[in-house]
Amino acid sequence: MTSSKKISFEVIKRLPRYYRYLGELLANGTARISSKDLSSRMNVTASQIRQDLNCFGGFGQQGYGYNVESLYRSIGEILGLYNGHNTIIIGAGNLGRALASYRSFEKRGFKLVGVFDNNPSKIGQYIEEFEILDIDTIEAFMQTHKPDIAVIAVPKAAAADVAKRLAKLGIKGLLNFSYTDIDAYEGVEIENVHLSDSLMTLSYKIENAKAQD
Amino acid sequence: MTSSKKISFEVIKRLPRYYRYLGELLANGTARISSKDLSSRMNVTASQIRQDLNCFGGFGQQGYGYNVESLYRSIGEILGLYNGHNTIIIGAGNLGRALASYRSFEKRGFKLVGVFDNNPSKIGQYIEEFEILDIDTIEAFMQTHKPDIAVIAVPKAAAADVAKRLAKLGIKGLLNFSYTDIDAYEGVEIENVHLSDSLMTLSYKIENAKAQD
Repeated sequence: MTSSKKISFEVIKRLPRYYRYLGELLANGTARISSKDLSSRMNVTASQIRQDLNCFGGFGQQGYGYNVESLYRSIGEILGLYNGHNTIIIGAGNLGRALASYRSFEKRGFKLVGVFDNNPSKIGQYIEEFEILDIDTIEAFMQTHKPDIAVIAVPKAAAADVAKRLAKLGIKGLLNFSYTDIDAYEGVEIENVHLSDSLMTLSYKIENAKAQD
Repeated sequence: MTSSKKISFEVIKRLPRYYRYLGELLANGTARISSKDLSSRMNVTASQIRQDLNCFGGFGQQGYGYNVESLYRSIGEILGLYNGHNTIIIGAGNLGRALASYRSFEKRGFKLVGVFDNNPSKIGQYIEEFEILDIDTIEAFMQTHKPDIAVIAVPKAAAADVAKRLAKLGIKGLLNFSYTDIDAYEGVEIENVHLSDSLMTLSYKIENAKAQD
């Protein structure tokens, strides 16, 4: 999938939400949806939706709305979800365990193939069907299993070293939960997740609701 | 804090990121920053930053950039971070435990005051200094401690019931990690967190980097 236009970060950020909502519609047996109905579900204006989807060539027919299944599949393709991504988790603490048990990842095309830690008391234990592996076996593991995505769930202080090590080994993407932004490496895409951002957004909404009382 | 204009959801979503970046600048001793420098750090255009901050009355001085500390404090106020939010966590599984140990929440003004579960084998255990409380004591707890935010980290099937129960008890905000969107209740603000969205965004970036090779 290539596209000639530079797609803005904000549009890309909305694609997973479109994908999730369309998946729910599909599961409920909805065949078509107007940009207006999609808009009221998604808290985005209808014109924004039309504009976003036009970035990728447009999928709607004036007056007929969108075909849910074909739009769902097209966005899935744009997101690269059907190519299969072998995924590893680094860090078997509470967050790593929670993420390893999170079945939605697999449903979206992210196949968990290994969980790693450096703590001898954790190595050899199991999370679901995954044995926690020694981080010092990662080099050999990468050659055999060729994961392309690593989820980083290690303490803040260890995150930069882990990222550097994985970048050298040819990882393609890092999903970083370690509460510190990871710097760019050539050829490695990074997505930093900040759980407290959502809490701050919620705080804003509460304040603003008060102000409107 | 009141504002006469309706602020768009997209702008609000960026405020926590501004707040985090400005906090880092402040910690590094940076006194002033131009919208251009802030923009290169944040992956948002400089004009977008000026436009965003103008929504709240504007803080910059043409040619002088922004005063980091005053902008940081102003955004914190807009986000309502200085009012103190007593926060509870419902669900003491892996994710609930990870969130309860996450010290950044407290630093942002979200004070954890209780952790609840319905599993007898978990009730009475400790996460850090917090004893896991029986969810059936939540009614009395709400009256005494008056938490205004609940973080929902229960299985998908239990989320709607928990949300309904808390809404009746007067909770003001729900941060929902339960992999299913929670419907609106009057007087309750809801922020649904979808961890797989970030993974999908990362997948897009990887695909797109390939296309550019």
